[in-house]
Amino acid sequence: MAQERVSIIVFSGELDKCLAAFIIGTGAAASGMEVDMFFTFWGLSVLRKKGVKVKGKSFIEKMFGMMLPKGADNLALSKMHMLGMGTNMMKEVMKKKKVASLPELIEIAKQLGVNLYACEMSMNVLGLKREELIDGLKGVVGVATYLENASKAQITLFI
Amino acid sequence: MAQERVSIIVFSGELDKCLAAFIIGTGAAASGMEVDMFFTFWGLSVLRKKGVKVKGKSFIEKMFGMMLPKGADNLALSKMHMLGMGTNMMKEVMKKKKVASLPELIEIAKQLGVNLYACEMSMNVLGLKREELIDGLKGVVGVATYLENASKAQITLFI
Amino acid sequence: MAQERVSIIVFSGELDKCLAAFIIGTGAAASGMEVDMFFTFWGLSVLRKKGVKVKGKSFIEKMFGMMLPKGADNLALSKMHMLGMGTNMMKEVMKKKKVASLPELIEIAKQLGVNLYACEMSMNVLGLKREELIDGLKGVVGVATYLENASKAQITLFI
Repeated sequence: MAQERVSIIVFSGELDKCLAAFIIGTGAAASGMEVDMFFTFWGLSVLRKKGVKVKGKSFIEKMFGMMLPKGADNLALSKMHMLGMGTNMMKEVMKKKKVASLPELIEIAKQLGVNLYACEMSMNVLGLKREELIDGLKGVVGVATYLENASKAQITLFI
Repeated sequence: MAQERVSIIVFSGELDKCLAAFIIGTGAAASGMEVDMFFTFWGLSVLRKKGVKVKGKSFIEKMFGMMLPKGADNLALSKMHMLGMGTNMMKEVMKKKKVASLPELIEIAKQLGVNLYACEMSMNVLGLKREELIDGLKGVVGVATYLENASKAQITLFI
Repeated sequence: MAQERVSIIVFSGELDKCLAAFIIGTGAAASGMEVDMFFTFWGLSVLRKKGVKVKGKSFIEKMFGMMLPKGADNLALSKMHMLGMGTNMMKEVMKKKKVASLPELIEIAKQLGVNLYACEMSMNVLGLKREELIDGLKGVVGVATYLENASKAQITLFI
């Protein structure tokens, strides 16, 4: 029997949804499934490296860069963010209850061999460059690659 | 041929999205498919019983308890909630047009044998106890059970 | 081997999510896959024709009609809408970078033979009539048709 496969589009850049995506992704990888995570639109925020400055961006690209959260450590909850209070409370609780944080889950995903893809078209629209994203990505790809992988997966999700 | 199967993650606790999830779930069950609904994060609000008080909760767990909607009857629309006006209007219209309400759909789901699962990790993070959830759940389970069921399903959704 | 198939529920009426849905849908159709897009709840906004007036609507149906965006050209981003500024900025950038707009993607979808379905129950609840929707739809259908198509698809998404 062929290896089972999970394909997840991470469209949302919200902390709670990204946690769900990585808990499913790492859980599947840990149980021997092949996992593809395809980050697009706001989901690209998760893959941003901190403190990288890229020259030659247009005014609008700089604006997008300023407005998008800067990496997995800076995302907000989709609900109850409450100027950061709710989000911090959630992070505290997760720490106390020994649930892995989002940056930790990303590391685990890499170690388990989860395929992390960044969406080429969204990077182009938002003016994000490859060097602004974290290391260890499988590639910067388009919808064709997504479709090819997803059509082999038993579980396909849009988060 | 094996029985067809649908696997739905209910992540959102919004009325409109939960209605969609249950309309798909009950529709599938009514046509003979096996249906798994896995409630996680805000989606757990749907499964909350009214008026249950649990002792021994931490301050933060009490806060979460207060902020999360108390059951299927108290969810808000994702859009046009308008301090409750839009949500009430939607409920009125559905009633008038004889579309089942969310509490009714949950009852139908149970009668049709839909497998309702609560996510163990989210319950832990939010401090929700089993006795705060409605009766008739198939179980409180983790991501491994979700993956096992979903990998056998033809239709997998994240709502 | 049977033709591969993609099934997308478009629940959201937000510009960014609808763009994602159509980029996946047209991409799949262009590579020879059969594609079903099922528009429900707020997603029906995408299919609205401009400037159609229908008589005999109830007060609440008129309210819904006024509040729902009037077609693919009038959707807002799920984030950074900023009273229209962010949405317009996004549209400008997409145009400059030669990414197809949502109305263009809908045309491409039709030309590629993507099956566009409107959800009967949502139309009923929102009081939308067939003549208010764009031409070229495959049909106005219920959840049974959705399930029948989706159970044959390799990729199933809820957007």
